[in-house]
Amino acid sequence: MYDSQKLEEFSKNIFKAIGCSEDDAALAAQVLISADLRGVDSHGVARLVGYVRLWEKDRVNPKPNIKVVHETPSTAVVDADKALGLVAAPKVMDIALEKAEKAGTCWISVRNSNHFGIAGYHAMKALEKDMIGIALTNASPLVAPTFSKERLLGTNPIAVAIPAGSQPPFVADLATTTAANGKLEILQRKNENAPQGWVQDKEGIGSTNASAVKEGGALLPLGGDRIRGSHKGYCLGAVVDIFSAVLSGAGYGPWAPPFVSFLPLAPDPVGEGLGHFFGAMRIDAFRPANEFKSHMDNWITRFRNATPTAGAEQVLIPGDPEREMEVKRKKEGIPLLPPVVKDLKMLGEKFKIEL
Amino acid sequence: MYDSQKLEEFSKNIFKAIGCSEDDAALAAQVLISADLRGVDSHGVARLVGYVRLWEKDRVNPKPNIKVVHETPSTAVVDADKALGLVAAPKVMDIALEKAEKAGTCWISVRNSNHFGIAGYHAMKALEKDMIGIALTNASPLVAPTFSKERLLGTNPIAVAIPAGSQPPFVADLATTTAANGKLEILQRKNENAPQGWVQDKEGIGSTNASAVKEGGALLPLGGDRIRGSHKGYCLGAVVDIFSAVLSGAGYGPWAPPFVSFLPLAPDPVGEGLGHFFGAMRIDAFRPANEFKSHMDNWITRFRNATPTAGAEQVLIPGDPEREMEVKRKKEGIPLLPPVVKDLKMLGEKFKIEL
Repeated sequence: MYDSQKLEEFSKNIFKAIGCSEDDAALAAQVLISADLRGVDSHGVARLVGYVRLWEKDRVNPKPNIKVVHETPSTAVVDADKALGLVAAPKVMDIALEKAEKAGTCWISVRNSNHFGIAGYHAMKALEKDMIGIALTNASPLVAPTFSKERLLGTNPIAVAIPAGSQPPFVADLATTTAANGKLEILQRKNENAPQGWVQDKEGIGSTNASAVKEGGALLPLGGDRIRGSHKGYCLGAVVDIFSAVLSGAGYGPWAPPFVSFLPLAPDPVGEGLGHFFGAMRIDAFRPANEFKSHMDNWITRFRNATPTAGAEQVLIPGDPEREMEVKRKKEGIPLLPPVVKDLKMLGEKFKIEL
Repeated sequence: MYDSQKLEEFSKNIFKAIGCSEDDAALAAQVLISADLRGVDSHGVARLVGYVRLWEKDRVNPKPNIKVVHETPSTAVVDADKALGLVAAPKVMDIALEKAEKAGTCWISVRNSNHFGIAGYHAMKALEKDMIGIALTNASPLVAPTFSKERLLGTNPIAVAIPAGSQPPFVADLATTTAANGKLEILQRKNENAPQGWVQDKEGIGSTNASAVKEGGALLPLGGDRIRGSHKGYCLGAVVDIFSAVLSGAGYGPWAPPFVSFLPLAPDPVGEGLGHFFGAMRIDAFRPANEFKSHMDNWITRFRNATPTAGAEQVLIPGDPEREMEVKRKKEGIPLLPPVVKDLKMLGEKFKIEL
């Protein structure tokens, strides 16, 4: 078990070592560790080495000039100047929250960015302002649309954070695929099969081979197959791609830059870097915040107290598992897999920073 | 086969017979028939008798005073005054388009409404203004969240319409469930089983009984079961419910008023009527519309030309099947099932209107 504060300090020092300012390094480390704390291990320190490799390939600018390049009262487009998405995303979300104070809502599409870590973190920034927060991003093309052999979309997550009153907030944070790549990696290590509906092989046929994506196959959109609505997951992933990248001028669809530095960028780019899309809606732009929050408490209580199915303890509210995990891991520490520890030690040696 | 214009005229006359103005009746009929034309038969004239029954129970006001009750530059809340959703939705979408002209975007939550028909129709109103249109609604509680025996949500659709240039627009319109109730009804008539992942029985166990929902079971969220991501479909349906009904002050979750008039309203209402949520985003609030549309053409062309899986003709773009169906049905007419024709004849006799 690794202490979250020590991991955060270590990560911050690594980000400083690649040239980030003190503040940017602290912000990036905070976003990264929040993924580990919330149990989204695939988006936490396990990715630190990946960000460093992108910097080594000159795909990350540690001293970016993140700027609004176009705006209206309720929108903006931001050029992130090749920033770490971990830095760009919370900064852009701050702009959205500020603009929403005046206009009621604000919607910002971001280009020229990189992987922004855990989507829920950015959406949740709205909560303290009594706003609803939304965070979307496109990602490395690993997903085949319904009827496609080719990978054309990323796991393109949707995060929505909604404040409540005495209840904890509602925080949905979901990839628009059946399962995330991280879950497949766990199965590979255990030498187990994947459930039907998670992946297809390189011929485009549904497969239970947990290594199918590595072998030229693809992740499947939420729904898994046509008869169970994979075209709906495809629609959602497509909307995330278009809002994040076509609206902003980033690389979209199969042109989205891959997270792994060993894969080449598309030779015929259609935009700059990765794209994100953020939204902030003031609750009181619709109805008084206290009134809304008391109804959210009622919503949450009613759903949580619904009769559960056999074997289930209770109906969960989006955000429940992550919040419970955060309490536990803040106290008990964060478990890291041996290959992740090995990567972190390698980074520590490279930059002369103690883990 | 029934001529779409004649069906539209008939529907308009029925709406006039229950007290709608000439304009409102024409609008409601147009929305209704657009569902039949686009192949969404469950939301077309098959529902006409249902709307009439809601009027008979005094749940539909044919002469509503639809009004904005609260607003900011980029938001509004509308009280639909028990209007037909078929009338309220396009009128509210017009308000959203007008407000978005100034603020860049506009987001309107609607309370005290009724079933609004085909979500895609309302989202598509944005296209002619070079805007992205979004339409959400909550609906009769027929869906069990993951781990719930109880039905707490509706099929809560998400529609997003995005303009393109020389290509037809991108129009996603999807229920947040694996399958719509209408598809189960077709299986029931054929005496066939439902695929796994569509429904659960009254004990909350996954079932292939196409009549499970009628027998106390429930529709399942997109994903179908926990291992294939039904919690993600549940999250999406919940967000639609909260945006449509908790933000506006409509009946949410299990308190959403049922479409069928024979089911009683919840005895302890938490809001008024059904809720909707509409969004309009000016493309040029982000980047020049022509630039965006040429990239949308590129997006659409790339996806449509992707290598298809064995047996599939090509990768479809959201909106393709409905657009092709519309061309076909405008020419060849609309096929109606015998029970639908029977209902329409009954309505014709009741109101002395020739079918």
